[in-house]
Amino acid sequence: MKQPIFKRLALIGIGLIGSSIARRVRADGSVGEITIATRSQETLDRAENLRLGDSYNLDARDAVKGADCVILCSPVGTYEAIAEHIAPALEHGAVVTDVGSVKQSVIDQMQPYMPEGVHFIPGHPIAGTEYSGPDAGFPSLFEKRWCILTPLPGADEAAVKKLSEFWRSMGSDIDIMEPEHHDLVLAVTSHIPHLIAYNIVGTASDLENVTESEVMKYAAGGFRDFTRIAASDPVMWRDVFLHNKKAVLEILGRFSEDLAHLQRAVRWENGDVLFDHFTRTRSIRRGIIEAGQETDEPDFGRSQQNQDD
Amino acid sequence: MKQPIFKRLALIGIGLIGSSIARRVRADGSVGEITIATRSQETLDRAENLRLGDSYNLDARDAVKGADCVILCSPVGTYEAIAEHIAPALEHGAVVTDVGSVKQSVIDQMQPYMPEGVHFIPGHPIAGTEYSGPDAGFPSLFEKRWCILTPLPGADEAAVKKLSEFWRSMGSDIDIMEPEHHDLVLAVTSHIPHLIAYNIVGTASDLENVTESEVMKYAAGGFRDFTRIAASDPVMWRDVFLHNKKAVLEILGRFSEDLAHLQRAVRWENGDVLFDHFTRTRSIRRGIIEAGQETDEPDFGRSQQNQDD
Repeated sequence: MKQPIFKRLALIGIGLIGSSIARRVRADGSVGEITIATRSQETLDRAENLRLGDSYNLDARDAVKGADCVILCSPVGTYEAIAEHIAPALEHGAVVTDVGSVKQSVIDQMQPYMPEGVHFIPGHPIAGTEYSGPDAGFPSLFEKRWCILTPLPGADEAAVKKLSEFWRSMGSDIDIMEPEHHDLVLAVTSHIPHLIAYNIVGTASDLENVTESEVMKYAAGGFRDFTRIAASDPVMWRDVFLHNKKAVLEILGRFSEDLAHLQRAVRWENGDVLFDHFTRTRSIRRGIIEAGQETDEPDFGRSQQNQDD
Repeated sequence: MKQPIFKRLALIGIGLIGSSIARRVRADGSVGEITIATRSQETLDRAENLRLGDSYNLDARDAVKGADCVILCSPVGTYEAIAEHIAPALEHGAVVTDVGSVKQSVIDQMQPYMPEGVHFIPGHPIAGTEYSGPDAGFPSLFEKRWCILTPLPGADEAAVKKLSEFWRSMGSDIDIMEPEHHDLVLAVTSHIPHLIAYNIVGTASDLENVTESEVMKYAAGGFRDFTRIAASDPVMWRDVFLHNKKAVLEILGRFSEDLAHLQRAVRWENGDVLFDHFTRTRSIRRGIIEAGQETDEPDFGRSQQNQDD
């Protein structure tokens, strides 16, 4: 029989990410038992109906008792309060980690409350969909995706190794990174794409001369690819932007500069500038496919079955 | 036996759209014969190897002889020269149409050359992928997609009806629209999304502190949805921007204003502005799914098979 990696896993928050972890580790038997905490009675009931855990708590402090691994899976704006609240009940030797999309802020929020002897190792699985809540999770969410860990200086090597093993058991590859660098990389690859997707969808719905129904009908021309990520959880994303302000503003400044350059090329009909730019961006796409982070099927949101002759 | 809608169809250009039309009408028998013209010997040979047509020409004028339907499927920047060149050989009563992503410019470019008795009816199927060339086409590309026609005042009703029937035979629904309104709607739903996708991919690849390989590795956080459309054909898209300048600049101005508003909310940590905006955009996504222009599967670029339990 397989040896569990952790004896008791406490999941604080049971949305898309938390419920995907729960589904996966239950299927794999990689933890002995799962305890789930969320402040919403409705969400907790739903998690229980879905049989995502072995025990259920409204109070996160109760959930972490006896847990040798605690994962915060709630929006990053909640972390400081949770850290303060659970700290007195954390077990000596427990691994405390998270799945937040920013890392320096998580360290600033949680580290001051972490007791001596608890292994606090911030983490971020680069995986998600535009759906949220306990029903949205699925066990393969982390397959072939990167999980970035940002251990603090002097972190316990055995604990980092164990947490890495846990994420690998869910199909992920592990990278170790500095928190500040993580926040910059993710600002580019995730946060700014979400902000501009949210923005274009808003711009489109505000037009006086184009109806919302026209926007929806003709979305297949490119717009729908943006609406997918602009449908992501509003609380989670509000918190991401508020907690990665520095990197988001830096990348947004560059984005706007670059957009002004393309806009000028349109105004002055400088076709070469546009052509050169559009050619360059093609190679990035190929790189992503080669890195295994995307398929090369021309699906554009349609299901594959429609495309075969 | 089914009666063909057109006896002889001339396709000028045989990329993603042209070759998808060819594949579909061959499978359906909805035209008697297909003649294909392209200026590139290599592309023409490839089309012949793929058996996309019944005859092949390097000269578009030769292709349109005897054709009762001519469809321009090349980048919109080529239309004026093609219209001038084919005009003397067009058959009386022939339908001349196109698939260009802008419509007023197409009218300005082509209408002056159209002979008396030829039915010039501009068209635009709202369908595509990021792939290009004769190999990229597939017969279901237009299934459940809208095809917008922008007939000129006084257009022959029977000809418009016949062209509508042709697009319906490929699975499309038909809308009739004013050219200027088309150009504004498509600026929002297609042109600006492409421009900002091209732009963010460029911004990401120019960063000094984040490597291109990091951008590719962590693309699953949202970025990859943008790279898909930023891999679209550079010549086609250069021409779209140069030929829909007015609407593109108008929408881009609004986009930048709106983005500055969100940027300010990040800087001043105004979470309510962000939350309200992100909540509003969710409903647009639902509308697109209800309009049948997107699936509701949370695929985020991954294949469906990985998601089932």
